[in-house]
Amino acid sequence: MGRTLHLNAFLMSSGHHEAAWRLPESDPHADLDVDHWVRLARIAERGALDSLFLADSPSFWHGAEFRPVGQLDPFVLLSVLAAATTHIGLIATASTTYNAPYNLARRFASLDHVSGGRAGWNIVTTPERSAAQNFGLGDRPDHADRYARATEFLDVTLKLWDSWDDDAVLADKASGRFAAPGRIHTIDHEGEYYSVRGPLNVPRSPQGRPLLVQAGSSEDGKDFAARYAEAVFTAQPTIEDAQAFYSDLKQRAKQFGRDPSDVKILPGIVPVLGGTVAEAEERARELEELIVPAYGLQQLVEILEVPIEILELDKQLPDEIAGTQNVEGARSRAALVVALARRERLTVRQLIGRLGGGRGHWTVVGTPEQVADALATWFREGAADGFNVMGPVLPASLADFVEHVVPILRRHGLVRSEYEGTTLRDHYGLTRPAGRYQLAETAAA
Amino acid sequence: MGRTLHLNAFLMSSGHHEAAWRLPESDPHADLDVDHWVRLARIAERGALDSLFLADSPSFWHGAEFRPVGQLDPFVLLSVLAAATTHIGLIATASTTYNAPYNLARRFASLDHVSGGRAGWNIVTTPERSAAQNFGLGDRPDHADRYARATEFLDVTLKLWDSWDDDAVLADKASGRFAAPGRIHTIDHEGEYYSVRGPLNVPRSPQGRPLLVQAGSSEDGKDFAARYAEAVFTAQPTIEDAQAFYSDLKQRAKQFGRDPSDVKILPGIVPVLGGTVAEAEERARELEELIVPAYGLQQLVEILEVPIEILELDKQLPDEIAGTQNVEGARSRAALVVALARRERLTVRQLIGRLGGGRGHWTVVGTPEQVADALATWFREGAADGFNVMGPVLPASLADFVEHVVPILRRHGLVRSEYEGTTLRDHYGLTRPAGRYQLAETAAA
Repeated sequence: MGRTLHLNAFLMSSGHHEAAWRLPESDPHADLDVDHWVRLARIAERGALDSLFLADSPSFWHGAEFRPVGQLDPFVLLSVLAAATTHIGLIATASTTYNAPYNLARRFASLDHVSGGRAGWNIVTTPERSAAQNFGLGDRPDHADRYARATEFLDVTLKLWDSWDDDAVLADKASGRFAAPGRIHTIDHEGEYYSVRGPLNVPRSPQGRPLLVQAGSSEDGKDFAARYAEAVFTAQPTIEDAQAFYSDLKQRAKQFGRDPSDVKILPGIVPVLGGTVAEAEERARELEELIVPAYGLQQLVEILEVPIEILELDKQLPDEIAGTQNVEGARSRAALVVALARRERLTVRQLIGRLGGGRGHWTVVGTPEQVADALATWFREGAADGFNVMGPVLPASLADFVEHVVPILRRHGLVRSEYEGTTLRDHYGLTRPAGRYQLAETAAA
Repeated sequence: MGRTLHLNAFLMSSGHHEAAWRLPESDPHADLDVDHWVRLARIAERGALDSLFLADSPSFWHGAEFRPVGQLDPFVLLSVLAAATTHIGLIATASTTYNAPYNLARRFASLDHVSGGRAGWNIVTTPERSAAQNFGLGDRPDHADRYARATEFLDVTLKLWDSWDDDAVLADKASGRFAAPGRIHTIDHEGEYYSVRGPLNVPRSPQGRPLLVQAGSSEDGKDFAARYAEAVFTAQPTIEDAQAFYSDLKQRAKQFGRDPSDVKILPGIVPVLGGTVAEAEERARELEELIVPAYGLQQLVEILEVPIEILELDKQLPDEIAGTQNVEGARSRAALVVALARRERLTVRQLIGRLGGGRGHWTVVGTPEQVADALATWFREGAADGFNVMGPVLPASLADFVEHVVPILRRHGLVRSEYEGTTLRDHYGLTRPAGRYQLAETAAA
């Protein structure tokens, strides 16, 4: 089998379409229903997908009037899913701005242990102002400061995950010696943001460290990804955008001295599937009609960081929204939204309709053959190493994708028929890193 | 059935005896083995015990040379156990010094949701200096400061758990209205240590809030328990000590305006069981012989906060260890250890032997009848509302307790034969609290 593409199931309670919960088939309480999440994980595993993933922010998501916003803690939920599955990777989003590195490193090592090496970390700096206000800050730290903090945070957690050598535990009952002296290391990190002595209180985990994932696409975000990320989630509305992003990021990875093939780039895709094109289009229309404009407006205001008064539903975005360089939140997402509106000369109402399905992600409305063809094209033409699959309606869209799209990809030799390894790193074709302290000793010997 | 006693299984990898991992029957890697923990949880549930509990500190436990020290994150582990059980309560230890209230409130609400109302929080201030050094502090905050912080931490988390009214979610598909306006509240907390806007991003959980547990027995700790705790874990080596503690704490609860019967007091017991007295004593001896004195010495030095040089294995504690008022760590534990050594005129070696089994907790070596009698006596004579069962060897001691001691207690009508409710609060006979914001509105209406 040649180069194969990677598939990640991006899960979101009733689906990525903001009105999915209003469909007759949807359980509007799915966000808190463990059985719903277990069902989704097992569907993804039935398709031998590489991983599943949950977005996250430690803040209340405004818009609760119009949409389910319950967000179970991702470690609680993924630990339950670890127990309910055997192969699929489990990627948790966690913030470098609102966690302590010791606690988070330990939590990921623990998830990696209980899942037998299936943990992944989607590293975010958490742009939301509402999060800052839950953690004693009047406003969020600015964009550059968040990334400086994230870089040091990574440095600390990587050291902590290496703080036990792989052969530290002797467990010698006869002598009563549990661990080998000198095989568990303090890290003695003293930096600008963090001071952490270590060692971690959990032995080195099956994968050594979780798979590192990143999703920010600003300049800071791309450099961060090029330096650390092993998988990158990204929103790319067209193949040209995706190709430019792909070659840019691979080039940056090279500049950081990394093998570009160790950075897997996975654009999001929102597949709106139907047995025929007409059926798929009917489903798209049905969803769009369920959108509540007031909610969409509120979201748009938060993304663009503009006063609601300047937006009119049946007009285009006003000219004064020229650039997004002053956006302190998710800057790359804001740029994408403005570009989409300008490119297609959309009214605010139309823009809201387009964002309602996948918040600016690539959307393909069509038959399983058409979706599979589109994925294959992006994969072959230098736009993607795989895809972040964002089912608009869950579980239906994910089940359709696994039952109808995945078999086509398999026939073309583009994805595996069954799992070949046991860890998330195995699925993504990445090696298990050696511990740094162990390495240093071996080199010195 | 009259007043019944409550049983909590205090779990610890291979057992509470520090040398348990060296027994031929023990798996020395049990600390990281999910199947081991699931087995323990199911044994406890078979006995219809109220709850199980894990101790915790976000720090490396020195002594890894002599004892397994891997500590999986408690939320990761308890979430797995939630999926593997149906009734038993799940009590996580979590620190008010080294967590952010928003993150922790959310994690407990999530555990309560996924377990169907079985979450409990053992509130600790984390005395270990080694923890402080993992969180940017050269030294730990002093005892009084830790408790002041804990009090405000509780205030914030209690508000967050109430931030969604019970009837906040409408989920009305027809109108597209998910939540009722005005039913989800910011908390706008501005205090000395914390500033938290809220609301929480998880709806109110099945229990409203987790069962609140406390284990510090210093003056500060007892006042804190009297104010907030619904269950108290405590180390009481004799029935007289336990009676004094019991009446003191119930009295303090009254002073805080609480019904004393809403504070369940559970002293620890280390049951060393045998079919005959001789068999039980043989097991106790076998365990004591496996103790590594160097490890015990190290532990003693950490508890008493004294230099190792002043301790001699075959002499009593030196006179200069007079009191423990200067101990900044776990002050009540230090006092207990000194009192035990003085009362029984123990050499340091003998003291280490006594502490090796249960770190100063009440230890009963005997037959199931003797253990059941001892529990019944403490329960009837005003020393306990139940017990924190600390099996010296796991799973064996817990299985023996459930199979041989629990049936005797049942015959005496002292514990239930099967679960009668579904939540942890049900098991402890406690009501579900109403939300404060909801209350305020009802009162105003």
